Amino acid sequence: MATQHHDLADDPEARPVTAGALADYLRTQATEFLRALRRHRESGGAAGAEPDSVGAARALRRAARRISGSLHTYRPLLDSDWSEEMRPELAWVSGTLALEHAHEARLERLLLALQRLSGAVPVPAQAVEGPAPGPARRPGAAATAAERGNLTVGAAKAGALLERQLTLARTRAHSTALQALGSSRFHAVTDRVALLASDVPLAPAAASADLRPLAEAARERLADGVAALPLVTAGSPYNAEALVHGLSPDPAPHPQDAPWHQVRLLLRLHRYAREVVHGGREGAAPGDVRLFQAGQALDRHRDASEAAAAAAQAARTSRIAPATAYALGVLHADQRHEVEAARFAFQRCWQREAVSAG
Amino acid sequence: MATQHHDLADDPEARPVTAGALADYLRTQATEFLRALRRHRESGGAAGAEPDSVGAARALRRAARRISGSLHTYRPLLDSDWSEEMRPELAWVSGTLALEHAHEARLERLLLALQRLSGAVPVPAQAVEGPAPGPARRPGAAATAAERGNLTVGAAKAGALLERQLTLARTRAHSTALQALGSSRFHAVTDRVALLASDVPLAPAAASADLRPLAEAARERLADGVAALPLVTAGSPYNAEALVHGLSPDPAPHPQDAPWHQVRLLLRLHRYAREVVHGGREGAAPGDVRLFQAGQALDRHRDASEAAAAAAQAARTSRIAPATAYALGVLHADQRHEVEAARFAFQRCWQREAVSAG
Repeated sequence: MATQHHDLADDPEARPVTAGALADYLRTQATEFLRALRRHRESGGAAGAEPDSVGAARALRRAARRISGSLHTYRPLLDSDWSEEMRPELAWVSGTLALEHAHEARLERLLLALQRLSGAVPVPAQAVEGPAPGPARRPGAAATAAERGNLTVGAAKAGALLERQLTLARTRAHSTALQALGSSRFHAVTDRVALLASDVPLAPAAASADLRPLAEAARERLADGVAALPLVTAGSPYNAEALVHGLSPDPAPHPQDAPWHQVRLLLRLHRYAREVVHGGREGAAPGDVRLFQAGQALDRHRDASEAAAAAAQAARTSRIAPATAYALGVLHADQRHEVEAARFAFQRCWQREAVSAG
Repeated sequence: MATQHHDLADDPEARPVTAGALADYLRTQATEFLRALRRHRESGGAAGAEPDSVGAARALRRAARRISGSLHTYRPLLDSDWSEEMRPELAWVSGTLALEHAHEARLERLLLALQRLSGAVPVPAQAVEGPAPGPARRPGAAATAAERGNLTVGAAKAGALLERQLTLARTRAHSTALQALGSSRFHAVTDRVALLASDVPLAPAAASADLRPLAEAARERLADGVAALPLVTAGSPYNAEALVHGLSPDPAPHPQDAPWHQVRLLLRLHRYAREVVHGGREGAAPGDVRLFQAGQALDRHRDASEAAAAAAQAARTSRIAPATAYALGVLHADQRHEVEAARFAFQRCWQREAVSAG
């Protein structure tokens, strides 16, 4: 990735970025965290599915990820004990809050796919809520009960089975999230974030430090991660790699997905590291749009990978009809092709970035 | 397709091509037909699966298609009664002989795909027999009994089911072909081809005719057929169009394949028309390689379309296990993606041709 862009973070002409920028960023994100938490409580987080509650939970996770990511990238500039205790707690908060939404989005994605595969008349794109099924897909929205009439018996039964299983999982995740939000562990995290909003525990070395080499190191970790991806294959359309283990007897048949999931996390860390250096404003730095698009492709990769696994899992339910199993097989393969399509989209995005900034 | 290449057939600088070239071509193909028929009988066509018998049947079909195609394209230059009686008989011969091989190739393709989907270790490419699974696919060969151990129970059962059904279909096609070859109808065709090898029934108008406008008309019919294809969609990788009706309740869910099948036939007619104009030698005309490749993409499209249908059909067998149905669903979707990949390959091939010769 020698042709990757080199921006402010490693431009020797630019002025150093001091630890003050990191302290500002962390204070801002801590304040966002507390504000989102207040919104979440006021919207009656217990009700769960309220739109404002969902938005507040998303904002909470967003701030938690940014604080956690900055603690990681800029660790040498922060009090190390504090930083090492804080990170897993923030990961626990964002992970716990993410689950409910993930199950809901997965169900939405799978029902949309079943509808598309049944050739049902799609709802106009404007009406689409939830995760977009990718730019190359037909516009559509999950089938309502009335529209289900368009589905075949197999597809309808597969949809009902997935709805049952993923709704159950979502309900469990919701209970877990509620328990977590009421726990003393969560109150301890909140107290720490409240402290962070006023006082950032910088390390003694931070006073004379430049943030840019640390941001550059995050960029290099991403570049190394991307270099390990099979991008030549991914850039060759219809390479059929993603479904190679579609019928494997291996219970965890898709180790091929792991390096992509890893790059998704590294890309996120790189983006947050840039936000700090560029004054905390998302979208302020050059190349932000393309990084965002690359991240979207990797989100779609993760979502499709997990949706495919959910379809395969549902097919293992005992005593299902062959027609249901057949529909789940088609659905699984469809989502694995979405995985492949997302890799292709990432490769294109990444290549464009390398060429335009190289 | 205004940018499509214009070759000898419509180059006003070139000399006219007389009906003599058509007569030569038809005599040559009639001789090939008779030679292939002799080889087929000598190899004991009754035994069916003998390699030389297979090669002879292929040569027989090849000559029959070329005679039939030329009768169509150059109809105004030939005795019309004779030509109109001859064509359906030749189509019957090549169609009847093609079926056995088609069932065999379909089974081979589906077993290879099941093996690939199971992540089974593939046999080196050198060992591959039968239809290649496409350039982007992993090399492999259909599973032997020993290798089946690598397949999951679902994939193995799906393979066994497909083997049973397609072997039965092949056996029936073999009997039908044997009956046809022994029939008085076939002997009548052979007698006519034998006459053609010495005496081509040209129309009175043929004496002063130029073949090139008729060859050009065949090229235009192909261009019109291609213009009606959704090539913009096909050229956008992972457009997910081919699987749009993958779970449709419609028993004939893929009318979208029909225009591609039609272009496959028009491309063939164009190629044969060019062979006549260019003195009967395949590969002698400019652009032959690309036309051949475009034809291969359309063959692959047809094969994958029919293999997908066979997998869907097998899934309708009563009392199959859910795991078998699931494997057939994955297999169906995989082959529908092969359909999409073949359309993409055709689009690339066609675009390259238009650009390089426009």
